[in-house]
Amino acid sequence: MSATATIVVIGAGAFGTALATIMALESRSTVTLIGRNTALMSDLRDMRMHDAVLPGVPLADALQFSAEPDAISEAGIVLFAMPSQSHADAARYYGPYLAGDAAVVTCAKGLDRTSGSVLTEVLERELRGRSAAALSGPGFAADIARGLPTAMTIAAGEAALAERLAHTLSTPTFRLYPSTDRIGAQLGGALKNVLAIACGIVDGAGLGESARAALISRGLAEMSRLAERMGGRPETVRGLSGLGDLVLTGTSHQSRNLRYGIALGKQVPEGAGNDLVEGAFAASIAAGLGRTHGIDLPITNAVADIIAGKLDVSAAVERLMTRPITTE
Amino acid sequence: MSATATIVVIGAGAFGTALATIMALESRSTVTLIGRNTALMSDLRDMRMHDAVLPGVPLADALQFSAEPDAISEAGIVLFAMPSQSHADAARYYGPYLAGDAAVVTCAKGLDRTSGSVLTEVLERELRGRSAAALSGPGFAADIARGLPTAMTIAAGEAALAERLAHTLSTPTFRLYPSTDRIGAQLGGALKNVLAIACGIVDGAGLGESARAALISRGLAEMSRLAERMGGRPETVRGLSGLGDLVLTGTSHQSRNLRYGIALGKQVPEGAGNDLVEGAFAASIAAGLGRTHGIDLPITNAVADIIAGKLDVSAAVERLMTRPITTE
Repeated sequence: MSATATIVVIGAGAFGTALATIMALESRSTVTLIGRNTALMSDLRDMRMHDAVLPGVPLADALQFSAEPDAISEAGIVLFAMPSQSHADAARYYGPYLAGDAAVVTCAKGLDRTSGSVLTEVLERELRGRSAAALSGPGFAADIARGLPTAMTIAAGEAALAERLAHTLSTPTFRLYPSTDRIGAQLGGALKNVLAIACGIVDGAGLGESARAALISRGLAEMSRLAERMGGRPETVRGLSGLGDLVLTGTSHQSRNLRYGIALGKQVPEGAGNDLVEGAFAASIAAGLGRTHGIDLPITNAVADIIAGKLDVSAAVERLMTRPITTE
Repeated sequence: MSATATIVVIGAGAFGTALATIMALESRSTVTLIGRNTALMSDLRDMRMHDAVLPGVPLADALQFSAEPDAISEAGIVLFAMPSQSHADAARYYGPYLAGDAAVVTCAKGLDRTSGSVLTEVLERELRGRSAAALSGPGFAADIARGLPTAMTIAAGEAALAERLAHTLSTPTFRLYPSTDRIGAQLGGALKNVLAIACGIVDGAGLGESARAALISRGLAEMSRLAERMGGRPETVRGLSGLGDLVLTGTSHQSRNLRYGIALGKQVPEGAGNDLVEGAFAASIAAGLGRTHGIDLPITNAVADIIAGKLDVSAAVERLMTRPITTE
């Protein structure tokens, strides 16, 4: 793999489309966006806009589209950009068409519900013999697609692969930092969604911005403890893919996890919408991981209990504020 | 010193008034707020409101007021809550009235312009033979005064003193975490103001929330390198007094440093107001510390250069985005 490659992005949602268009616009690679909805892919090819998810953003002229799974067979790099819970299915569907030497990268932020695994492990289970990489960190689809400056992490098992992916996938506005800590990068990405819900609860309950900042700070410490216990490195969680993404998701109303939390904090659960956000799945999965590994996760547990209807917001705040005072 | 004490807060600005009222309301201590403006202190005593800085917040009935420096002579704990650059003068003015065993605590977030020192060192220079503590971390005056949940750090040279101050000054809504890392806590508090200006510049220039999150993440790494080199502990900078406060100041429009940065980012410097914010002083001081200690501070240097009129915003962004790609 050189600094140019044939890139396929699977998943024509906001994030996949954003990645595909910025890479097609600014890198020297050939980029194809693939989805299973034939009519949608045909519309995107004709309109060169994806108004449902990226309103007002023209897609790059060079971007190609396909609804055929065998369109991935030429790809040197395949980005999986569908929701976390669809990864196993997508790997089974597209796996047979993958070239032998293709690098596979998950771009979702979540944990697998059935196994509690990070998504690189899901891909590796379904695509036997391959090593999967993970893209994580603070990047809203709308910001990436518009060419606003963005910095994320790309984590692979081997440093050389992480560096080659960083160089090949980076563009002048989309900057990737290589890492070999796949566990840390992915736990950061998944757990920050839980903490973003907590931030939303604090906002919705009118507890103030100072409380939200304290929550982010203490939540990061909690994320770091769990990631370290599971084999990740704490500095990864404190970098772009943990802290950076937590700041973005926990303070921006563009975040669905934050909005879901706000609805919970206002105690208008219907405002949370019908589809559960990534963080709602991740909360109960992470609370379970904390129990399994014997790690104290007071904020995560409170979010999981609030979502499950077992705890109300004022009781949760009191529980968090009356813990014994210890050093940070 | 027991869990109750006679507390004096010097400085009737927003932050000093907020600390004084919440401690008078909720702790078991006697609390007096002191300022040099006799008319103001008399008005506060009569009105029990400080509308100029905390509009709509009634002050605690138990809070006492004085314009007499000898009112501090009974205090077991004296909180210095004036701006950074007034600390040396305040210590000289009030020092002669301090009881021999009084604990002194700086509540400002900045570095001394003339010496580049942290403020505990300024107090210790002026109050020979005393050891000063520092209050730092994410707490807006308005949030503290309203009794919204807040968590901050109290750092003292001795662990026992830090713990006693934490217990005595904490209230049910204002939670203090003890630390022995005064350098880390204070550098975090001062440098986050520089990064808040950087966040404002990014906002003002319309670069997006993803860019701001990346900036906070990379800025924290930069703060941590400098603090560690100067004898602080990186985990302090990544805790409430660095990260937590950075998140608060860098994402809230209540922050004057952020608003100052927004005006710079929009290239309407007149919008930045007449009085320079703490972060504007701290930027050039910190850039100098980076040179002295041989630490690379790309974001701090860019902010200092923009404030000095030596760099424009688009050139700064290009400079930051085109640095060589390295691991985080």
